Amino acid sequence: MVLSTDRGFQRGDGIFETLSVVGGKPQALDLHLNRFETSAAALAMPKPDRESWHSMVLRAIDENPSDQAQYLKFMVSRGQESVDRPATVDANFGPTAILYIADAASYETARASGISAVFLDSGRDSGAAARAPWLLLGAKTLSYAVNMAIARAAGARGADEAILTTTDGYVLEASSSTVVALIDGVYCTPDASIGILPGTSQVSLFEGLDARGEKTRRGLITQDELRAADGVWLVSSVRMAVPVHTLDGSALPVNPELTVMLNDMLLAREN
Amino acid sequence: MVLSTDRGFQRGDGIFETLSVVGGKPQALDLHLNRFETSAAALAMPKPDRESWHSMVLRAIDENPSDQAQYLKFMVSRGQESVDRPATVDANFGPTAILYIADAASYETARASGISAVFLDSGRDSGAAARAPWLLLGAKTLSYAVNMAIARAAGARGADEAILTTTDGYVLEASSSTVVALIDGVYCTPDASIGILPGTSQVSLFEGLDARGEKTRRGLITQDELRAADGVWLVSSVRMAVPVHTLDGSALPVNPELTVMLNDMLLAREN
Repeated sequence: MVLSTDRGFQRGDGIFETLSVVGGKPQALDLHLNRFETSAAALAMPKPDRESWHSMVLRAIDENPSDQAQYLKFMVSRGQESVDRPATVDANFGPTAILYIADAASYETARASGISAVFLDSGRDSGAAARAPWLLLGAKTLSYAVNMAIARAAGARGADEAILTTTDGYVLEASSSTVVALIDGVYCTPDASIGILPGTSQVSLFEGLDARGEKTRRGLITQDELRAADGVWLVSSVRMAVPVHTLDGSALPVNPELTVMLNDMLLAREN
Repeated sequence: MVLSTDRGFQRGDGIFETLSVVGGKPQALDLHLNRFETSAAALAMPKPDRESWHSMVLRAIDENPSDQAQYLKFMVSRGQESVDRPATVDANFGPTAILYIADAASYETARASGISAVFLDSGRDSGAAARAPWLLLGAKTLSYAVNMAIARAAGARGADEAILTTTDGYVLEASSSTVVALIDGVYCTPDASIGILPGTSQVSLFEGLDARGEKTRRGLITQDELRAADGVWLVSSVRMAVPVHTLDGSALPVNPELTVMLNDMLLAREN
């Protein structure tokens, strides 16, 4: 339970991380804690106590064993809103911290069969994040109403997911996953500086690909390049790598063996 | 109290309204309920039961008499998140509704002395709202983390408030108020179609000004026009009309008599 005056409820004013727990181990916990710290800094919130979060995560897993994959979500809001003076925080309360763990849904079908996606206009250009840090484009905040609206807009267009684009024609991200594409033999992903959430799973994936001697690149990807890619995946912590079989109504190449290789790499990752 | 799995907390996935209560009467309740309905539609949430909200607001005021101005906030979130399948709603629960009322802070000083403002880049152009309704630019949602960040960014620049602008040089809104400017004898405000929250107080104000035979205009305002205005006010339900005395470090004309006239008009409004 949280108070209804909690800023997390009143203003979506807080941060979170969701990670996967496989075989009783948290996946990429260090990467998630890194991003949690970055998000806190972007929102001018107190720096999370890394050691405490680390041990709380391990304790939650210990106390909630499961023979299935689990997801673990932790979040911190700014605390209680002042009733006397809304938009300020009541100094008598600290931040509100919540952690929970549950069995994850199965995403085997999505990983095996793939999903369809459409491009949706983000309304902003590729330079917006650099010019306007107050847009919090790289922070994982509790203010997710637009992410939800984007997912609904994709559904209204008969697609499973939306991939956001900039007004100058570049690829951003999906509503809760990172875009990875195989273009001319190189695994490509948009650089986070374009104003997307830096994907922890994408980082793990590229580390694994680099270790295997595959070519990887972080940089601008145009919509046309994505349409012509030899493979497109949406990558996230719990659903992991899901191939996009259709983009804006046109078929994309799918390569089940590559998808299995990417997911094996993600399932095997540790910190 | 709300459950920590409430979508309002988890995702800022809900809508709200804040209105002023003066002399035991809610101000512009119909306009607020209109916008509440518009916000619900934008988020694909159930249409609010207007009669219930109307009577709950009146009852809250009746049961909480005060000799001061009060603010009353009501909000609805989408309900409980499914723990089994995050990003979907648990069908066993309905939406969560919260209403509270409290004495408002005094804004006499801000109304009398005015505030300073700086322009901040919104990252988007003036056509974004029309092209991309999934950005929810006209909906009053619980996802307010960016609004808070914008207010902090203003403070970091030594200003009281930020006025957002488009990449093509037009004026949008402040983080929780509407811009009204006196330009060549005409009271001007950006049309909501540019991607701002339609301000209930601005509507009341223009109705009052129209009734007095003053000229009003809703349409595009450039940053240069605002810099050269004969008066600029930030208008909102509880703080009402506050003059901007400094914009981007340059003095703006202030006219205390006009400000008093505008606030008298707002204080006198009913439904």
